[in-house]
Amino acid sequence: MYDAGALLAEILTIGDELCRGEIIDTNSSWLAERLWDLDITVAWMTSCRDVEKDIREALDLAAGRAGAILVSGGLGPTSDDLTVDVVAALAGVEAEVDPPSLERMTARFSQAAFRLTPNNMRQVRVPRGARVFGNSAGSAPGFEVAIAGAPVICMPGVPRELHAIFDTAVQARLIELREAGGENVERLAKQIYRVFGMGESHIATALDGVLGTAAGASLHYQVKFPETLVKLVVRDPDADAARQRFDAIEADLRARLGDKLYGTGDDSLASVIGARLRDAGRTLATAESCTGGLIGGLLTDVPGSSAYYAGGAITYSNAEKVRQLGVQPATLDEHGAVSRECVIEMARGARERFGTDYAVAVSGVAGPGGGTEDKPVGLVWLATAGPDGERAREFRWPGARDQIRRLAAHASLGMVLRMLTRGDA
Amino acid sequence: MYDAGALLAEILTIGDELCRGEIIDTNSSWLAERLWDLDITVAWMTSCRDVEKDIREALDLAAGRAGAILVSGGLGPTSDDLTVDVVAALAGVEAEVDPPSLERMTARFSQAAFRLTPNNMRQVRVPRGARVFGNSAGSAPGFEVAIAGAPVICMPGVPRELHAIFDTAVQARLIELREAGGENVERLAKQIYRVFGMGESHIATALDGVLGTAAGASLHYQVKFPETLVKLVVRDPDADAARQRFDAIEADLRARLGDKLYGTGDDSLASVIGARLRDAGRTLATAESCTGGLIGGLLTDVPGSSAYYAGGAITYSNAEKVRQLGVQPATLDEHGAVSRECVIEMARGARERFGTDYAVAVSGVAGPGGGTEDKPVGLVWLATAGPDGERAREFRWPGARDQIRRLAAHASLGMVLRMLTRGDA
Repeated sequence: MYDAGALLAEILTIGDELCRGEIIDTNSSWLAERLWDLDITVAWMTSCRDVEKDIREALDLAAGRAGAILVSGGLGPTSDDLTVDVVAALAGVEAEVDPPSLERMTARFSQAAFRLTPNNMRQVRVPRGARVFGNSAGSAPGFEVAIAGAPVICMPGVPRELHAIFDTAVQARLIELREAGGENVERLAKQIYRVFGMGESHIATALDGVLGTAAGASLHYQVKFPETLVKLVVRDPDADAARQRFDAIEADLRARLGDKLYGTGDDSLASVIGARLRDAGRTLATAESCTGGLIGGLLTDVPGSSAYYAGGAITYSNAEKVRQLGVQPATLDEHGAVSRECVIEMARGARERFGTDYAVAVSGVAGPGGGTEDKPVGLVWLATAGPDGERAREFRWPGARDQIRRLAAHASLGMVLRMLTRGDA
Repeated sequence: MYDAGALLAEILTIGDELCRGEIIDTNSSWLAERLWDLDITVAWMTSCRDVEKDIREALDLAAGRAGAILVSGGLGPTSDDLTVDVVAALAGVEAEVDPPSLERMTARFSQAAFRLTPNNMRQVRVPRGARVFGNSAGSAPGFEVAIAGAPVICMPGVPRELHAIFDTAVQARLIELREAGGENVERLAKQIYRVFGMGESHIATALDGVLGTAAGASLHYQVKFPETLVKLVVRDPDADAARQRFDAIEADLRARLGDKLYGTGDDSLASVIGARLRDAGRTLATAESCTGGLIGGLLTDVPGSSAYYAGGAITYSNAEKVRQLGVQPATLDEHGAVSRECVIEMARGARERFGTDYAVAVSGVAGPGGGTEDKPVGLVWLATAGPDGERAREFRWPGARDQIRRLAAHASLGMVLRMLTRGDA
């Protein structure tokens, strides 16, 4: 048993909307991944409805078979949010308002000039005597109580809030619980690598054999369309030994993936581009047709992007390509809006008119309508312009409108990154 | 119990990769949604590892509490695929090859010039006496046996294969099982309403008592930030009675939520705006500062948006607000970029320069930096311009950069919708 002696955990997610299939349970997989990284084995993941009896039975069952129980959901303001009351009853205590959480909620609401409703008070209650984990991203705090001797850690179902509470407090608490388990603990060296422009099966082929023959190292893939995340994990009872083997494998992994590997951890194409531009004191503009603002949206998602991003032109109509970017009407007549000639004029025009060092332009057929035999749905032209001139590239992607647009936005940023890295694209 | 008498189902998904968080369990939500539409209530969803003891216990538990059990996963060719053996043992029968499935697999493999390995034979086994559901999309068939009197329906974990088996055979079988429940079967009338501009707790307060006192009606809330979805469900053994009560409640619900309820089902603010503009033969332009293209991205997410969306100006710098939109430098000097005066000039400038009927503009402090005492993070000004002049509104939102930007983009669309609906905003 590879988990002999290890802490076994159960994840319980609560909500009618889960059992009706209205939302996909991403909290369970998110938590499972984090726990796996902490060397804690998730043995069961259970979802149930907002039904008191079912929640009670699920918690009873979990407390009987798991060494740690993580609960998500049922901490909202409405009467079908039952987690606090059920957990408190099972722990044999009353539910009561947590003063620091009330204070934080009151401050947030008054800042926004929101009115507190009686319902809101429900959200800041915890079982008496609970260990409370403050919620920096919302109202309902996380908390921990023991049920039948097993630690039960409850968090809100809103992913952003769950992530915040987990990262700031629950993770450290789980390490405490794990260490209490004694000598079987393994140390991990790990990293997530962000790859764009190469699919999962091609990455797997490129990385075949990279782990060598020694045990304790593993690769895991996760598709976050249109990117693929590659996770390298090396386990060893000795932390230094884990780190050394990790470093050797990482060097080989980076060499094999080349510039398709653009970052690690929470990097994004936009944040990597932003850091390069800021360091170099250079500026960028965008000219978007089929992406309609998505590239600008990605770039300005990065705090401080005003230092290098001047702005963009969303030229959804041909007339706007002419008016805002100076594309020649003759170019549109001869080659159409989805053409090498048009995107090059768009990028050049954006660079000149915005007065930036660099510009990127995109024009394509996102579908579902508008495709022709010559220019089918999925045909996208990208161009960059910089001090060294313009470059254009053609792509033909399968998929639905949303996928094509997202691919086009990310590929535009990929082309900008290559221009900044190598002086070409 | 609102589900008294109805068929209660449990979904069990099996696989180490689920419990390590490497893949998100989309099979459970897919099946839950299908069952919901069949009037079958999913009460529990459980995931466990490829561990014989855990699978056995999960099936035992499910058989004791559910009227139908759907299992996904563990039907693959490798030795860690245990479902057939565990289910057969619990049903008290042997596992044996299903000849039609073997024949189909042999034909598929020879067509593709693949060689059958001994492992592949594992995939076409079923418990003796099982009802078999042929797999048109892969090798392993689905099957059904009874465990402790409860029907257990097993399907492969590959989503494409699960969908194929469910749609061609399992769905019909579940209707049979549901109808066997006899007179207790309830009919559903249901709808999802999309609400923006009103938080979950305020909606709940506004809808307090809307269901009246009769049993069988329920409201469910789901936050899809920054929107809230409200689902109304009315259950009755008689379909017409359910529909009549539903209609009465819906009328009241709509009256209470007013124009905060902007659509139903899969509507989005952008799609509702798009339909209005197209029907009226009108056009729209955008002028974005802090949202950096998000509004354009939402609008152009709608197929056919080029019919009414001319394009936009992303004016992330003050210089671009002047150059692209004609904002007066004096306005920026006196009032700053985040001001009523600036957004009104942005909206007016966009409408004039793009030559559209309507325009919307946004400028705000998205943070985390850039806030001042006068103009804190979260302060956002929006404006619309149309044939009847300009309107501006100020918002102060709490939250992180990403939330403020998404709120600002959605609120901009909300303001456009009100302008189109009432002629003001």
